[in-house]
Amino acid sequence: MTKNKTVLHQMTATEIVKAIGSGETTCEAVARACLERIAEREPEVQAWQYLDPDGVVRQAQALDKSGKRGPLTGVPCGVKDIIDTADMPTEYGTPIHKGHRPQRDAACVALTRKAGGVIMGKTVTTEFANVHPGKTRNPFDASRTPGGSSSGSGAAVGADMVPLALGTQTTGSTTRPASFCGAFGYRPTWGDLRLNGVMEAAGTLDSLGIIARSIEDVSLYRDVLLGIEPQPLAESVAAPRIGFCRTHNWNRIEPHTQKLLEDAAERLARAGARVEDVELPQDFVALEDAHRWISGFEMSRNLTWEIENHWNEISEEFRNGRLTDGLACTYEQYVSMRALMHHCRKLLLPVLDHYDVLLTPSAPGEAPPLWNPVPNPWVYMVWTTMHVPSLTLPVFKGPNGLPVGAQIVGRHYDDRRLFALSRWIDQRLK
Amino acid sequence: MTKNKTVLHQMTATEIVKAIGSGETTCEAVARACLERIAEREPEVQAWQYLDPDGVVRQAQALDKSGKRGPLTGVPCGVKDIIDTADMPTEYGTPIHKGHRPQRDAACVALTRKAGGVIMGKTVTTEFANVHPGKTRNPFDASRTPGGSSSGSGAAVGADMVPLALGTQTTGSTTRPASFCGAFGYRPTWGDLRLNGVMEAAGTLDSLGIIARSIEDVSLYRDVLLGIEPQPLAESVAAPRIGFCRTHNWNRIEPHTQKLLEDAAERLARAGARVEDVELPQDFVALEDAHRWISGFEMSRNLTWEIENHWNEISEEFRNGRLTDGLACTYEQYVSMRALMHHCRKLLLPVLDHYDVLLTPSAPGEAPPLWNPVPNPWVYMVWTTMHVPSLTLPVFKGPNGLPVGAQIVGRHYDDRRLFALSRWIDQRLK
Repeated sequence: MTKNKTVLHQMTATEIVKAIGSGETTCEAVARACLERIAEREPEVQAWQYLDPDGVVRQAQALDKSGKRGPLTGVPCGVKDIIDTADMPTEYGTPIHKGHRPQRDAACVALTRKAGGVIMGKTVTTEFANVHPGKTRNPFDASRTPGGSSSGSGAAVGADMVPLALGTQTTGSTTRPASFCGAFGYRPTWGDLRLNGVMEAAGTLDSLGIIARSIEDVSLYRDVLLGIEPQPLAESVAAPRIGFCRTHNWNRIEPHTQKLLEDAAERLARAGARVEDVELPQDFVALEDAHRWISGFEMSRNLTWEIENHWNEISEEFRNGRLTDGLACTYEQYVSMRALMHHCRKLLLPVLDHYDVLLTPSAPGEAPPLWNPVPNPWVYMVWTTMHVPSLTLPVFKGPNGLPVGAQIVGRHYDDRRLFALSRWIDQRLK
Repeated sequence: MTKNKTVLHQMTATEIVKAIGSGETTCEAVARACLERIAEREPEVQAWQYLDPDGVVRQAQALDKSGKRGPLTGVPCGVKDIIDTADMPTEYGTPIHKGHRPQRDAACVALTRKAGGVIMGKTVTTEFANVHPGKTRNPFDASRTPGGSSSGSGAAVGADMVPLALGTQTTGSTTRPASFCGAFGYRPTWGDLRLNGVMEAAGTLDSLGIIARSIEDVSLYRDVLLGIEPQPLAESVAAPRIGFCRTHNWNRIEPHTQKLLEDAAERLARAGARVEDVELPQDFVALEDAHRWISGFEMSRNLTWEIENHWNEISEEFRNGRLTDGLACTYEQYVSMRALMHHCRKLLLPVLDHYDVLLTPSAPGEAPPLWNPVPNPWVYMVWTTMHVPSLTLPVFKGPNGLPVGAQIVGRHYDDRRLFALSRWIDQRLK
């Protein structure tokens, strides 16, 4: 007896693993349910850069046949198309690399397969994981952006096509689509998850990202990507000390979102959390510039082959924006910006020590109309530069009934504690 | 009129650029001179994993024809075979990836070409830039190792086949072959040189490396790889304050090398430098362990695809060594080792502030016989974990007349100053 397919495609990874483990369903049934959901939603959402339904079914059947059980057995996963796959193209969101086929899986893909995950296909990325958009639309309103750069990963999870998807983040590329697509979005402590086989955008800032349907799933997938035995989340935690951090750019957050966050802070306080306002030191204001110069400097070097050989096939947006900025940036300027980042990280340490987590915006508001740039990257980017782990919770609705996330920020290397505390918060805000 | 070919293949990059710029020689003449040298020495040295002499001549002819002049125009460069090249195979030192052809150049290769460099071919790497050796032999004694993992890059420069070669370093993979092959070996401040298209071994430690024939060439090539306008080295510098750092493992340095370094410290003092003994804090002793666990943890995740699909094609040395260690390492252990590294970096800052540079061993002694493991990785590895820039100077001869280097360590982000001060030291030790 397998569960009804309309249910299967909405299950979390943790539920899928359990249902397959108990014989209640099969890898194939789950894969087929997700493929059916994709067939239904993809014409509108366009989350997939590459999808081979027959290949997916074969992967699932092989898993059923082998009988092997791993921590992700039978869980369909989407993979952002800047991450190498041995059996699927990897095109980095650009016509320059159309049809490119790597010969091996990136570390994160191989770890997913090792755990029994089913690689569903490649999800749409913006051009080189920068700003020029792909074809994907917001699953809750097709006239709006899904957010980038992990657009397809955000939309695929948001549209119930897959329970898990891999993204990356250099600015807000996981946080933002998670917030716009009503999903959990996790950016790990910088440096924890390996990037072999993932396109380097700006190594000083890059990390993998996970987009998921539950905090348990985020935690499970993180353990898989760390290559360690999955550990359960702490079942009960004390009410946390929460620093409510509006950031310097609070006036660039939409009033409706400001209200949602302020209400959330009050509700959490009423639920027993010790909530206090946190102001970041004035030096943090300059981090927006620091991020622009560091990422521009690094991207414009990393993409030298494309710049030299395919300049005219790069979008005007990227050419005239980050690449031109980056090429004009001097080494001295770049180093001074890295030093500023380092300095701010030190200033943040006592703040992180004083609270268990910080509550802060995930995005300025709902997803804007398609092809409009998303304002105020500061809300994601400040935490990216700080290298702290961040989890976006899909707990709010904006004025049009569309998802808006709340971002919870934790301490370096203590991502598991961030998850446990975020679950406490999530349960109280839902 | 072109210079005599036996001279051309021994010129530095800086001299080549000047001679081509003044019309004294051509890119083609230089390339042919190096190819002739390779033809002569390669049967014994075996530095090259891939070499296409006709392709090299075509590159050089195209440069001559274009008349364009860049900072490296006509300079033959070797490229370690874990670095992607669009027009040559990239095999990572393993039969698993035999014939693998990337579709783009790594950032560092594209930057080399942009500057006018001639990509001569791919140099031999140990397996996955770890310890299992390739076919290369020491150019000064074919019964001895060239050092790894950038074995071919070290040997190719040491054998006068090319003036410049790209390597990488995770432990001592540039410092060691430079020391054994009588070349300058440079590991930059960690994070400065982009790694897009370079195999990640252990991202927390990895960096590019440059093997060269002069300090001016190292400085020139670094600027090219930074994607900035090359700047000349400071012509004259004051006699530096030098910290002579024997490290905790001085007793694992061969007595002959100990004597060479102690004599060098005395000679530098007599030449006007303020030389003082530096003892590293006791906490540094644990860095050897830290390096082993961090690199093992990261490598064993990065190579998941190979481990899962080609375990038996991986050398026993690597399987039973770093990979097995790494797979057994817990996340908690890994994180505590990263914390230790970070802690030691803080302890090192006042030491770096107190001196202009540190003088320390590059290797325990001369190159050992082929296939023998190289003892005492601590001498390179401690500086790799500290993320400081390091330059190995080919200033010593061991008891058998073979090269032994002296390692000069500088301050983070101040690599250019390290070069200027190292030149002062090099001139006085030669």
